[in-house]
Amino acid sequence: MANITKKVSWSSRTDESGAAGEGTPLLNGSEQPRLSRQDSLRGRPKEIPHNEKLLSLKYESLDYDNIENQLFLEEERRMSHMGFRCLEISRWVVCGLIGFLTGLIACFIDIVVEQLAGIKYQVVKENIERFTEFGGLSISLILWAVLNSTFVMVGAIIVAFFEPIAAGSGIPQIKCYLNGVKIPRVVRLKTLVVKVCGVICSVVGGLAVGKEGPMIHSGAVVAAGVSQGRSTSLKRDFKIFEYFRRDTEKRDFVSAGAAAGVSAAFGAPVGGVLFSLEEGASFWNQMLTWRIFFASMISTFTLNFFLSIYHKNPGDLSNPGLINFGRFESESMAYNLYEIPLFIAMGALGGLLGALFNFLNYWLTIFRIRYIHRPCLQVMEAMLVAAVTATVSFTMIYFSNDCQPLGPEHTEEYPLQLFCADGEYNSMATAFFNTPERSVRSLFHNPAGTYNPLTLGLFTLTYFFLACWTYGLAVSAGVFIPSLLIGAAWGRLCGILLASITANGSIWADPGKYALIGAGAQLGGIVRMTLSLTVILVEATGNVTYGLPIMLVLMTAKIVGDYFEEGLYDIHIKLQSVPFLHWEAPATSHWLTAREVMSSPVTCLNRIEKVGTIVDILSNTSTNHNGFPVVVQITGSDEPAKLCGLILRSQLIVLLKHKVFVELARSRLTQRKLQLKDFRDAYPRFPPIQSIHVSQDERECMMDLTEFMNATPYTVPQDTSLPRVFKLFRALGLRHLVVVDDENRVIGLVTRKDLARYHLGKHGLEELQLAQT
Amino acid sequence: MANITKKVSWSSRTDESGAAGEGTPLLNGSEQPRLSRQDSLRGRPKEIPHNEKLLSLKYESLDYDNIENQLFLEEERRMSHMGFRCLEISRWVVCGLIGFLTGLIACFIDIVVEQLAGIKYQVVKENIERFTEFGGLSISLILWAVLNSTFVMVGAIIVAFFEPIAAGSGIPQIKCYLNGVKIPRVVRLKTLVVKVCGVICSVVGGLAVGKEGPMIHSGAVVAAGVSQGRSTSLKRDFKIFEYFRRDTEKRDFVSAGAAAGVSAAFGAPVGGVLFSLEEGASFWNQMLTWRIFFASMISTFTLNFFLSIYHKNPGDLSNPGLINFGRFESESMAYNLYEIPLFIAMGALGGLLGALFNFLNYWLTIFRIRYIHRPCLQVMEAMLVAAVTATVSFTMIYFSNDCQPLGPEHTEEYPLQLFCADGEYNSMATAFFNTPERSVRSLFHNPAGTYNPLTLGLFTLTYFFLACWTYGLAVSAGVFIPSLLIGAAWGRLCGILLASITANGSIWADPGKYALIGAGAQLGGIVRMTLSLTVILVEATGNVTYGLPIMLVLMTAKIVGDYFEEGLYDIHIKLQSVPFLHWEAPATSHWLTAREVMSSPVTCLNRIEKVGTIVDILSNTSTNHNGFPVVVQITGSDEPAKLCGLILRSQLIVLLKHKVFVELARSRLTQRKLQLKDFRDAYPRFPPIQSIHVSQDERECMMDLTEFMNATPYTVPQDTSLPRVFKLFRALGLRHLVVVDDENRVIGLVTRKDLARYHLGKHGLEELQLAQT
Repeated sequence: MANITKKVSWSSRTDESGAAGEGTPLLNGSEQPRLSRQDSLRGRPKEIPHNEKLLSLKYESLDYDNIENQLFLEEERRMSHMGFRCLEISRWVVCGLIGFLTGLIACFIDIVVEQLAGIKYQVVKENIERFTEFGGLSISLILWAVLNSTFVMVGAIIVAFFEPIAAGSGIPQIKCYLNGVKIPRVVRLKTLVVKVCGVICSVVGGLAVGKEGPMIHSGAVVAAGVSQGRSTSLKRDFKIFEYFRRDTEKRDFVSAGAAAGVSAAFGAPVGGVLFSLEEGASFWNQMLTWRIFFASMISTFTLNFFLSIYHKNPGDLSNPGLINFGRFESESMAYNLYEIPLFIAMGALGGLLGALFNFLNYWLTIFRIRYIHRPCLQVMEAMLVAAVTATVSFTMIYFSNDCQPLGPEHTEEYPLQLFCADGEYNSMATAFFNTPERSVRSLFHNPAGTYNPLTLGLFTLTYFFLACWTYGLAVSAGVFIPSLLIGAAWGRLCGILLASITANGSIWADPGKYALIGAGAQLGGIVRMTLSLTVILVEATGNVTYGLPIMLVLMTAKIVGDYFEEGLYDIHIKLQSVPFLHWEAPATSHWLTAREVMSSPVTCLNRIEKVGTIVDILSNTSTNHNGFPVVVQITGSDEPAKLCGLILRSQLIVLLKHKVFVELARSRLTQRKLQLKDFRDAYPRFPPIQSIHVSQDERECMMDLTEFMNATPYTVPQDTSLPRVFKLFRALGLRHLVVVDDENRVIGLVTRKDLARYHLGKHGLEELQLAQT
Repeated sequence: MANITKKVSWSSRTDESGAAGEGTPLLNGSEQPRLSRQDSLRGRPKEIPHNEKLLSLKYESLDYDNIENQLFLEEERRMSHMGFRCLEISRWVVCGLIGFLTGLIACFIDIVVEQLAGIKYQVVKENIERFTEFGGLSISLILWAVLNSTFVMVGAIIVAFFEPIAAGSGIPQIKCYLNGVKIPRVVRLKTLVVKVCGVICSVVGGLAVGKEGPMIHSGAVVAAGVSQGRSTSLKRDFKIFEYFRRDTEKRDFVSAGAAAGVSAAFGAPVGGVLFSLEEGASFWNQMLTWRIFFASMISTFTLNFFLSIYHKNPGDLSNPGLINFGRFESESMAYNLYEIPLFIAMGALGGLLGALFNFLNYWLTIFRIRYIHRPCLQVMEAMLVAAVTATVSFTMIYFSNDCQPLGPEHTEEYPLQLFCADGEYNSMATAFFNTPERSVRSLFHNPAGTYNPLTLGLFTLTYFFLACWTYGLAVSAGVFIPSLLIGAAWGRLCGILLASITANGSIWADPGKYALIGAGAQLGGIVRMTLSLTVILVEATGNVTYGLPIMLVLMTAKIVGDYFEEGLYDIHIKLQSVPFLHWEAPATSHWLTAREVMSSPVTCLNRIEKVGTIVDILSNTSTNHNGFPVVVQITGSDEPAKLCGLILRSQLIVLLKHKVFVELARSRLTQRKLQLKDFRDAYPRFPPIQSIHVSQDERECMMDLTEFMNATPYTVPQDTSLPRVFKLFRALGLRHLVVVDDENRVIGLVTRKDLARYHLGKHGLEELQLAQT
């Protein structure tokens, strides 16, 4: 598993503007020239030697700590009580907007998918019916495969060529963002557009994917866009919400957006809130949580409202989200104490199957990184998968003779008679001839006897491998629904088997219950979420009764799965070498102190510093900092310099750009004082140091950093244990933590990478290596 | 509203042992002698001059930050990876136990209340029926009043004489505890016993109270007890869970206990988790949240399991919690877009009524503090309220002629015919002749036309004042159910009125929907919780559909209510002058810096300090610290002393008790080294300094604090703004934050009181005064 050469697919492609904008304030300045060189070979991604035990230096941190410099304090002090209230109100307005837009997008995706898939199934069904009589079903197969491949091709092309970061479900990326890692281009408008079109194509293309994961990403992008009151892509600045143009506020809104996405996808507002909190918020803030909840609520509400109009039942808001599991009535679905061990066993099975899924997908991803890294290859793989999916489905329908009587109420939308007798339909066809959401629902709710055990078994097996092959393709699609579908299938199978081995089957009679438990177990085994997933499933089924069984099942699946392999999202995060901070420092890390983990020596700046020095430091490719401690040296004394503040690379860039030099300020008395607005206008795409011209004369000027530096950075003594440093860092969402000695002299700097390096491996505490990838 | 003389009822009574144990490590040493003097006048509570704008100094903080001294670090370093895993497993076991025991207690309360209330209603009903024919109903009235008063008397006596802190719902106390304030005796076994018996008596006594609030307190006590593996009251030490004997761990478990209590009370496990997080956890930890969720789940499960046995339907686990709102089926209860404004208007009404309720209760509490502070008076008041409640109920039943036909399925358990025709029953009697829980349920679910609008109006009015009068009595009882009942009554009234003014009433036909909204509005208007309350109501009704309306209603109720008066719990917390820390620093407090808010000067200790000095400092009643910065002075140099650690009063006490003196260690080489266990054994009732005898010789000895002090306390520079200090303090749950200058010299200490002092009043930032009460 070690020492493989890989391409970092999330952010391997860097177009010129992006590289200039995002690439600059990298921790690692040295990458800059290489990037420019690579850019000339456009479309050909670079290959980076990669080792799984590496931690990439290319990811920046978000700054969740306010930069409390004099400008900021002045602004806050000028603001009246009423001003703060208005801010609070606008935060609510933004959250409402986020919820509304996310709901709209979910609605759009849902309707378009339903329409297109409807047309597709109708065409294929008619074709099959025509050829069933006259023979020559191979033509139907080809039609089906071509239709699917075409849709998937479109989806894969826009993802692979225009925005590779829109691939996959987007949940790992959002997890990283909420964790405090800046993933380039993840919350751009372009990403959103590609994501939405991509997910429509891949779902309509019949891949074993869901549209739920991408909703979470979409919600996050909406949030990041709306809250900033401008779009850099569209070059529009609405001059509103300028106060929110900083990492602290933006990340809060992105949490709300992700929650709104979950809420729209599953009709689970509380689950959405818990998802955001579980993944993102280390510092729980009551008002923030309410706003997140509000955004979630509005999102579900908007989706319901527009879907109710679409379904010609306007104003009826009692529908759930994108995926509708149908309502489980507790009367018919009661469970008993002695079923709990069975549920737990199913949880363990889910954990095992999930670990197998993740294991296969891990190797597949490694394979893809090695051999399938060109966009055209990626598109071809996606088309191949689409064609194979269609072929496998067709074959299984063809060879299955599981005929079921057509119900009087025609619950199946596209019943396919095929070789069945009149008045019957092919049951296997139903499983494939449906959007996966509908299949899950029918597995949950169809009365006992609808499915043949053999059909279910075969379906589980094929769908398992198809879903595993599909996840990680260059299409935008989620893994939730395929997991639920696999789980529901084998869960229902378990239910049927249990019913057949027990004679008096009244309590066992409902295999839908076991389908639900199986679905939970499989999904839990793959993604390894527990709290939020429990709530999402409870909300999606509309039944609180199943809370405890679902929780037990998810816990078991997590424990069993973790024993073999990490969660799917964690695998993909790890393969990107993202410096992801977990909730707590590794348990056995009390041995380590700040002195051992910190980066040292640190480049410090003087409070009044020569412009030339600053330019040199910023241009120096070996200076791998984004934050510089500011020190003060009493002139004439030989006392060591004391820490007096912290300034960020991005701030220095803005200062240089506006030429805030002491000499100029003296000569041009009328010069406008630099304001917070100037920093906010530059946020978040600060120009690179190379683009700022500093003349030789200006190099001799001095810059006074007093006003702009954060005068009260958090510090720790050098003997502080790692868990203590970690706790401070994580709880406050810091980006830089200055390590000082007992004379208040700077001796080091702790950053995210220094903390993320340590993790608990199989053999105790392990240390990842830092790499320039 | 200002300058009233009040008795602090939560903790005014101090029995000798309690005073000795709890009173000592007070921030304010000077109170000690006064307490002892007061103790001689046993049973006569002291009166304390009190001003509403005061902040009491008598409350200690909990320490949520681990004291990382050398002993602790050594222990952690000695522990293997497996050791940490075992700890984690035992945390889960403890949480499971907490959930199980809390569920059992809930079950016990429920069954006993149901049995006793059944007997009471049966007796009264038979009596009334007897006297309806022959006249002389006044005898029935007297019987009813006496029965009620007797029950309430028992409940009030045990509360007023044995454990005054068990009065009320306990939610304000638990809020304070989770906030980090140590409320004396709040998590003792004795409190639990009194609470459980008290709540049974008051509910059976027919007071306008619920048994839900006390469940939360009970859960918290169970958690505090179980997690420590010993009972000081029972003088039993099971020698288990010794690792958990510190504030950090204990508070985590208490969160789980409170959540389990909510979960058992309302059948709302997710609501319980959110309640705990909303009230307690500032630092969100994923594993902790899972454990809390687990405890909640187990609690609901246990309750359901035992209730299913009680209801002769063993093993059917699909029941909700203590309060059963009945299942709202979404088909019959759909709401439409144009109803949303109506819901919001009801929310505003709920906010207004809630504010009125709180306002009346505030003045009543002031009155009680002034005039009804003796236990016997408190018992008499409680009995009076019980008698009045019975009388009012009786009068209203007597004068009401709202006769309803007796349904064929006999949904009413105690239908009272009174003056109604045969086959009919008195509808007003149903409202009073029921536990409040059942009344709420019938208001939610009974078909339209069951209640006469006049009956509902009168019922709302009387119950409103009765509930208001009842809250704050010296009985243990909650305010949730009365609030829901009041709200459900006027909500249903609104529904009936709306139905009557609209002709085509299909959507308006179900007044139960409006009863639910009204209940939410009234409860929200009184207690002002939003997020957790929404989830609790959603879970209790088993219907996710109503999420958005309930949330909007609760938000409106909160906004409207907050405009007039604070929430009920906050009023009671404020009247106790508890230094309660809110989520964020007041918005307009950027003006203030650490220098202005800190306590100064600070008593510092040298790293190697004379025993006599330490004893003097600890005995000195004007030394109002519980934590002392430890400084080091380079001997011979005139450099100022630098901060090198922080040590707690409790640690010093233990050191003195074990005579850990440098000289003794030298002479007695075999002496056992002091271990963490010694500190844990003394936790949480550290002996007072007066009880430790230090001879004159020993006073000359030296104590080396190096090993025991926290060598890396968190510090802030003196220019740090208040919001920044606040954020650090709150996020990490600190107790002491040392303020240093740029030479690392101690210049002040920030404690909870220094931060809680500042709050946003009507006229901007206000500062509360500190008082020795």
